[in-house]
Amino acid sequence: MEKTGSSSSLNDLGPNGLGLTSAFFKPIHNSNPPLPSNRCTKVSVVGVGNVGMAIAQTILTQDLADEISLVDANPDKLQGEMLDLQHAAAFLPRTKITASVDYSVTAGSDLCIVTAGARQNPGESRLNLLQRNVALFRHIIPPLAKASPDSILIIVSNPVDILTYVAWKLSGFPVNRVLGSGTNLDSSRFRFLIADHLDVNAQDVQAFIVGEHGDSSVALWSSITVGGIPVLNFLKKNQIAYEKQTLENIHQAVVGSAYEVIRLKGYTSWAIGYSVANLARTILRDQRKIHPVTVLARGFYGVEGGDVFLSLPALLGRNGVVAVTNVHMNDEEAEKLQKSAKTILDMQSQLGL
Amino acid sequence: MEKTGSSSSLNDLGPNGLGLTSAFFKPIHNSNPPLPSNRCTKVSVVGVGNVGMAIAQTILTQDLADEISLVDANPDKLQGEMLDLQHAAAFLPRTKITASVDYSVTAGSDLCIVTAGARQNPGESRLNLLQRNVALFRHIIPPLAKASPDSILIIVSNPVDILTYVAWKLSGFPVNRVLGSGTNLDSSRFRFLIADHLDVNAQDVQAFIVGEHGDSSVALWSSITVGGIPVLNFLKKNQIAYEKQTLENIHQAVVGSAYEVIRLKGYTSWAIGYSVANLARTILRDQRKIHPVTVLARGFYGVEGGDVFLSLPALLGRNGVVAVTNVHMNDEEAEKLQKSAKTILDMQSQLGL
Amino acid sequence: MEKTGSSSSLNDLGPNGLGLTSAFFKPIHNSNPPLPSNRCTKVSVVGVGNVGMAIAQTILTQDLADEISLVDANPDKLQGEMLDLQHAAAFLPRTKITASVDYSVTAGSDLCIVTAGARQNPGESRLNLLQRNVALFRHIIPPLAKASPDSILIIVSNPVDILTYVAWKLSGFPVNRVLGSGTNLDSSRFRFLIADHLDVNAQDVQAFIVGEHGDSSVALWSSITVGGIPVLNFLKKNQIAYEKQTLENIHQAVVGSAYEVIRLKGYTSWAIGYSVANLARTILRDQRKIHPVTVLARGFYGVEGGDVFLSLPALLGRNGVVAVTNVHMNDEEAEKLQKSAKTILDMQSQLGL
Amino acid sequence: MEKTGSSSSLNDLGPNGLGLTSAFFKPIHNSNPPLPSNRCTKVSVVGVGNVGMAIAQTILTQDLADEISLVDANPDKLQGEMLDLQHAAAFLPRTKITASVDYSVTAGSDLCIVTAGARQNPGESRLNLLQRNVALFRHIIPPLAKASPDSILIIVSNPVDILTYVAWKLSGFPVNRVLGSGTNLDSSRFRFLIADHLDVNAQDVQAFIVGEHGDSSVALWSSITVGGIPVLNFLKKNQIAYEKQTLENIHQAVVGSAYEVIRLKGYTSWAIGYSVANLARTILRDQRKIHPVTVLARGFYGVEGGDVFLSLPALLGRNGVVAVTNVHMNDEEAEKLQKSAKTILDMQSQLGL
Repeated sequence: MEKTGSSSSLNDLGPNGLGLTSAFFKPIHNSNPPLPSNRCTKVSVVGVGNVGMAIAQTILTQDLADEISLVDANPDKLQGEMLDLQHAAAFLPRTKITASVDYSVTAGSDLCIVTAGARQNPGESRLNLLQRNVALFRHIIPPLAKASPDSILIIVSNPVDILTYVAWKLSGFPVNRVLGSGTNLDSSRFRFLIADHLDVNAQDVQAFIVGEHGDSSVALWSSITVGGIPVLNFLKKNQIAYEKQTLENIHQAVVGSAYEVIRLKGYTSWAIGYSVANLARTILRDQRKIHPVTVLARGFYGVEGGDVFLSLPALLGRNGVVAVTNVHMNDEEAEKLQKSAKTILDMQSQLGL
Repeated sequence: MEKTGSSSSLNDLGPNGLGLTSAFFKPIHNSNPPLPSNRCTKVSVVGVGNVGMAIAQTILTQDLADEISLVDANPDKLQGEMLDLQHAAAFLPRTKITASVDYSVTAGSDLCIVTAGARQNPGESRLNLLQRNVALFRHIIPPLAKASPDSILIIVSNPVDILTYVAWKLSGFPVNRVLGSGTNLDSSRFRFLIADHLDVNAQDVQAFIVGEHGDSSVALWSSITVGGIPVLNFLKKNQIAYEKQTLENIHQAVVGSAYEVIRLKGYTSWAIGYSVANLARTILRDQRKIHPVTVLARGFYGVEGGDVFLSLPALLGRNGVVAVTNVHMNDEEAEKLQKSAKTILDMQSQLGL
Repeated sequence: MEKTGSSSSLNDLGPNGLGLTSAFFKPIHNSNPPLPSNRCTKVSVVGVGNVGMAIAQTILTQDLADEISLVDANPDKLQGEMLDLQHAAAFLPRTKITASVDYSVTAGSDLCIVTAGARQNPGESRLNLLQRNVALFRHIIPPLAKASPDSILIIVSNPVDILTYVAWKLSGFPVNRVLGSGTNLDSSRFRFLIADHLDVNAQDVQAFIVGEHGDSSVALWSSITVGGIPVLNFLKKNQIAYEKQTLENIHQAVVGSAYEVIRLKGYTSWAIGYSVANLARTILRDQRKIHPVTVLARGFYGVEGGDVFLSLPALLGRNGVVAVTNVHMNDEEAEKLQKSAKTILDMQSQLGL
Repeated sequence: MEKTGSSSSLNDLGPNGLGLTSAFFKPIHNSNPPLPSNRCTKVSVVGVGNVGMAIAQTILTQDLADEISLVDANPDKLQGEMLDLQHAAAFLPRTKITASVDYSVTAGSDLCIVTAGARQNPGESRLNLLQRNVALFRHIIPPLAKASPDSILIIVSNPVDILTYVAWKLSGFPVNRVLGSGTNLDSSRFRFLIADHLDVNAQDVQAFIVGEHGDSSVALWSSITVGGIPVLNFLKKNQIAYEKQTLENIHQAVVGSAYEVIRLKGYTSWAIGYSVANLARTILRDQRKIHPVTVLARGFYGVEGGDVFLSLPALLGRNGVVAVTNVHMNDEEAEKLQKSAKTILDMQSQLGL
């Protein structure tokens, strides 16, 4: 498929189409030298499955980019998704929608979001699946990084912690410009459960899930606040009893959320779409907000032994990861994190990167 | 399935959950009599397939409602979609998301959007499919209208012109409160093609496709304007030649757009989602904008013989359809409209409504 | 001045103006019974000085209302401000702007915001000024409450704590429907100073100033969090020394902010405009967020002795004040609050309400 | 006054303030080389009077920029306005607000908006006032252009047509990067009057006032459309009589609008603020929309004889003025335009530029 920056239906109508453009508009006097091309905001999304499209469409609706480019290996699906977004032009601020199987369509992106990934085959080992994903990333990351050498990379594909490391190695980018969506969505689910229970706005609840994305994630109980008020401290001060098991059950409900949605509708899409669009806004508009995302965790909270990526509360801005927040973890929490790090490092050592 | 207004995971944890609510917040002095319940904006969407969910999610992202309720016959899919939207709570303004197989969940809606419809079986006649859809609507429209007797109804299911008529009859609503999405999306595709050709913003292009939604629709060439400037008039005054066939080709490209997207990705979703969210904004926020939507067309442009619904440029506001615009049609255009009306009336007469 | 809901320039042109309306639009068939009038969101602002207009214009830009009505005693200024907002119609979603010296223009408001107030004369005692303001409120609150018996009242006029009490008494409204802007803006200034120092987003900083609006306000140091992480706790755990005087200096900088802006530009406007628009969004869209605003404080934190209004972190929603948050205060903080309460009660007892 | 990018209150508290920054956040591993500084969107506003501040505040509310810098000759007023905007940080997306009497604060702007201008003294001739404004612009434009050599310039100061020419000459910028707000606001007032009369959304009305900003402007009657439908054509086709005088009266109402607002409230602010923010959006987000703004008019509609700037319907995008629309003008309209051009050229010849 060719680059399909615009539907050419009208231009196909004959040598001059309606002959409108040149007659209807007259260029203004003098030369009209274009400004440097990096003045507009461009986001690229690799992979146009349910997740990739939920991300692209949410970014479009929220008016976060001046150009969105889509890449996928399936040219028909790709062309269909591009047209379906383009057809809404009259209902949205003007955004250029482009799509191609060729990564040159992503040139000059400010932000590249990778959602492509291999699916687990029946009986396939986790390592084997991972190796297939590494092979896939060898075809995605280098051309993506080459086309947009100044961009920020967000990895959404799973297992997100290792694949963010893989993307970092394959891109050659500085470490602040490669991050993973990590536990940003898990944390939102956590905040929703607490907010729903208290009948308050989830945006008024601060609560972090950190560490490895998935079953081994760590809920930071001591830093949950509602409207700025620490919840566990409050319970203690008011001598309100709660069982440690109760907290564990809440964490399990969060961990189970993704599985439950997949069981019910077959996949997850909307929430991850909003989650990544949220990261895109913080980065592109230099919002300097704290998000739990996958970053290089070496040296934080006793994580040592190599370059391992895990979700930590990170301050994000236009340069990607600005800093990692020095949140309090108790020994048990830090140990969990260190254990996850060790497991991941073992896995990484077998990848031959 | 029960009404699932909120995930009950935390409340399931024991008799008091965390015991937080009553301790964390203290009610303010005096009684706290709730205001009338119709003070918040509620939108219901019937059918949570690709179209219904694109509509619901776009309305959620654009912050057009305080509550969105979903109805579908498939409880698992329904629950999954509800949870997937709820999990994004931390990234969005607070919106209550509810879902149920029971229409009582839609009670008090300001706007009800119907996307449910039967699919054509191989070899099935158009009349037979229509009769199955009428049977389906007999289960949808009366309970929907009963639960929200003051609401506006937007029908998106196809064939939209006849089904809007069917919904009007089954609801017992005044005619200004029942409309169909009609050619609102076709017109956006038309505007996109022209805007893309001229490299201008599609919002600066005014262009209407009216009449029957689908192959028999009518493109109103004489009223196309760009930035307020009539295009055909301009071409004539500047003696720029164009072939009538060229115009016809553009119209065919619009008509073919939906088929092309379906061929490429299997269905359409995003553009119809934006299209209906756009109607929802105009209605809920009383924007008094002109949209080409399916309305009772009897008495306009020589359409006579019975209560037939067709797309016409209609002024929409908080009461639904305020008026129909007296746009200029030439004889050929009016005849096409009248012919569509006759075909539809014939079909309607066989429905036994 | 008459109610000036719309500029009548075109209608003044002759018996039929351009004669356009009836010909250009044709009403749709059947009767068109209007829906109940309370379906659109209406906000009224009393007082069109710098503060009132900054509030009205911010609410307009943020698209929070379908109708904004303005009331002031000065008909020329009022008409000028109305026209200046109306002239922007082509750049904004459609919002009806009305204005009158007569409170009937506010009928059916969902939210009424009072910014009118007498200014201190040279040498005038605080009590005398207050008595003049009470006299003014006797002309404002009863007709406002009568025209919109279901509305929420936000008092912005100073001294806000006592005048919120006065408005509550004069309105006869339940206590949850009368609040004052209180320390909502002081808290934003506090959050800005901390965020600016740390170079993070102020929306990620949670920090409350409570109590009496002005010099006697109380900074809740122990509940400051950044990204959900308690700051003072963090400093203690990391054995980072800080002087109590330092904290006091920050509080003084906040208290001094308003005076500094008044000294420099003569008045404050933008920040109070955003502050009240922020409250309007939480209330009108039922956001259930926690804001430090003036509420009936009797029974909270040892405040006793009578119906006194002070700023406390309150959960706000469509019914106004839902609850007061049980934030931790140390003895010193609670004593300050109780002392403010006593001073205010003394003052109130001299008002003869 | 020094550059005041941030309030330094906290940093003044001692050598280390709270000592928070370095401890609370830890930088991520590796170097963190900042991306090119032009990745964020910066807007500068020169002149912080009512007009300049309405523009700056509307751009801030509409979230169109990542940094807003203010310049004025009055350091106190400037500092006060900066602080008043900064204090709203907790209610807005993060935007850096800077201010200085020195133009270096504007360095790297994408868009510079000039609102500064001398006021007419009693008995002063128009030429004398103009010469004083040219002298003022000699102090504004060269340092502004030097600090942001790639920026777009919007001139709002009056007389806008000549001062846009003056700014173009003094800046040395290509002609597509210098424009004036011109009749963009007059056209909005025109659209409001028509929309209000028809009770439709002003965004559905297309209507242009072009030519010289002020009393000699030209209303383009033949290109007024409502929802894309040409209004005068419609009246003719339906044989609806209207007097030429009626049209003239409407134009006079538009011309008189600014005077009326000034008479009533002393100045205009909100509408011009929205008008210029609207241009800023089209330019910064590359919206390619058509606006009536002041551009180099030589060669259009028979305007000859020199470099004269007048308002014409222009297609705007990220490079400023992309093209001028070839709208139809009748002989009378074109003659008016040519006459204005001649008057302005005479005036310009006396400026010694």
